[in-house]
Amino acid sequence: MKISIEKAVSLISSEDNFVILSHKSPDGDTLGSATALYYMLIGMGKKAIIRCNDPFPSKYDYLFEGYTEQENDEHFIISVDIADEVLFGSKLESYLGRVDLSIDHHKSSRLFAKYNLLDEHAGATCQLLYFLLKEFPQPIGKRVADCLYTGIITDTGCFRYPNTSRQTHLVAADLLDAGANAVGITKTMFESKTKGRIFVEKHVLNSMEFFYDQRVVVIDLPLDLVEQSGADEGELDGISAIPKTIIGVDVAVTFREKAKNLYKISLRTTEKVDGSVVCAEFGGGGHARAAGCTITGDYQTAKTQILQILKKYL
Amino acid sequence: MKISIEKAVSLISSEDNFVILSHKSPDGDTLGSATALYYMLIGMGKKAIIRCNDPFPSKYDYLFEGYTEQENDEHFIISVDIADEVLFGSKLESYLGRVDLSIDHHKSSRLFAKYNLLDEHAGATCQLLYFLLKEFPQPIGKRVADCLYTGIITDTGCFRYPNTSRQTHLVAADLLDAGANAVGITKTMFESKTKGRIFVEKHVLNSMEFFYDQRVVVIDLPLDLVEQSGADEGELDGISAIPKTIIGVDVAVTFREKAKNLYKISLRTTEKVDGSVVCAEFGGGGHARAAGCTITGDYQTAKTQILQILKKYL
Repeated sequence: MKISIEKAVSLISSEDNFVILSHKSPDGDTLGSATALYYMLIGMGKKAIIRCNDPFPSKYDYLFEGYTEQENDEHFIISVDIADEVLFGSKLESYLGRVDLSIDHHKSSRLFAKYNLLDEHAGATCQLLYFLLKEFPQPIGKRVADCLYTGIITDTGCFRYPNTSRQTHLVAADLLDAGANAVGITKTMFESKTKGRIFVEKHVLNSMEFFYDQRVVVIDLPLDLVEQSGADEGELDGISAIPKTIIGVDVAVTFREKAKNLYKISLRTTEKVDGSVVCAEFGGGGHARAAGCTITGDYQTAKTQILQILKKYL
Repeated sequence: MKISIEKAVSLISSEDNFVILSHKSPDGDTLGSATALYYMLIGMGKKAIIRCNDPFPSKYDYLFEGYTEQENDEHFIISVDIADEVLFGSKLESYLGRVDLSIDHHKSSRLFAKYNLLDEHAGATCQLLYFLLKEFPQPIGKRVADCLYTGIITDTGCFRYPNTSRQTHLVAADLLDAGANAVGITKTMFESKTKGRIFVEKHVLNSMEFFYDQRVVVIDLPLDLVEQSGADEGELDGISAIPKTIIGVDVAVTFREKAKNLYKISLRTTEKVDGSVVCAEFGGGGHARAAGCTITGDYQTAKTQILQILKKYL
């Protein structure tokens, strides 16, 4: 059942023991939502605990500075930023089919909970959650503002993506008023790179190859290079988009070696090329601007195959 | 004389022939302000022309798509985003001492005009200008919204710098409503790199040296490398900040070779080191987080000198 903010407030008000679920491979929006909700519940004298399939990446440590696990009977289960139960991950299997309230902004939401608070126009779950938390008796303080601001800027690319709306900016304005450390959080989220990340970026700049009047750039990420860098998946985020920032480049193709003779291909394109159509020719898919597929075979052959097909779409 | 928005509106309403001055080495805020004001004046049936000491960088071409030079008797002179007449540049010398209205947001404004509309709390002159243009009879349309949005995101680093306030977000919200092409403008301003820029970035990543437990990074930009890259000053913007994004780095030192044995040094620091104090030891200065100085001598000697001094402040 889809419900209103008022209904969600009344459901939460009448309960005392909560578990908050974040999705696997957690990002800033699911963790910002979980922690914001946690602090508000604790502030109302309730008990809550946050559960997630995976460890929290260390860049989000500041969200948890006031967090202590409050074991309780987990009477009311809330999932945040989770569109589908498959995103629970195996460690949260025991919660399947048991979620009382889902708070989410994904158009693709499966509405799997008993009650579903969904705003698919919100740039982030934290943006929607703001309007819920505003109805709670205690005001949104600095700590909660930091959590919500984190989710909003990570999901909107710091107000750069098309999901940024008038409402996104109005909420950001209120969060600054509430004391959100916008400058510090932005720096942590977008301007902090590990040595491993720099190592991979260096490889990308040194090894990229240009084709078709320089409209196509190919980069490869060999298995041993990624291992040598020490960078984890989170640190590799966005690597495949780097060549797309070069003026005149319409397609950036990344060959990520997953095993010997097995390549995961990522396409990042401008509006001039539909990457999902290109990837479909290899049994893959995705979005027009960001698509992917898998190719087996040695690197040179795989590259030649992709370039042949790409030619048709330039 | 400092004046209110109401007074500025009444001054502009009673005039018909305008010249709008942008500062030399024009940026997104001075050009966004100039074009926004131009389009609004034209929309009111007035005549206006924009003057600048330097050519407009091509990345700002979209601001001028509806611009045609309307020669007129230049009866009323308005400067935008100019804190001091020294920023006119030699080609605008004839306007010295003649500006009727200055619209600006710099705390350092010299209030050199007959009338000065100044808001030093505005993140950009475009942010202040929005409140002026809102009082004009015709509404702010898409074209003007694009101009104002450009100035706001370039001067606030797309809502990342500390000058971003509640008001900045409220204005951004209104500009989205007015049709600003936020996604496209952001891409043009922040995600478009020339081959020359990439060439220099590659050099930076390949050649940076770490010192003092990796807290200090040194990069050098030899004259011949910069020439070989073909990158102009605009394209080199922000290069010296790249190493500061590496976690653990407190000081990024850039040695820009200006001539044989002449180095312009830029320091970019975290809050742990005051760069202006370090640079003062070499007769330079600047801000705590971004400072500079000049050293004569060969590269190795200059580097040793800086590292010696830096040691004291780590």
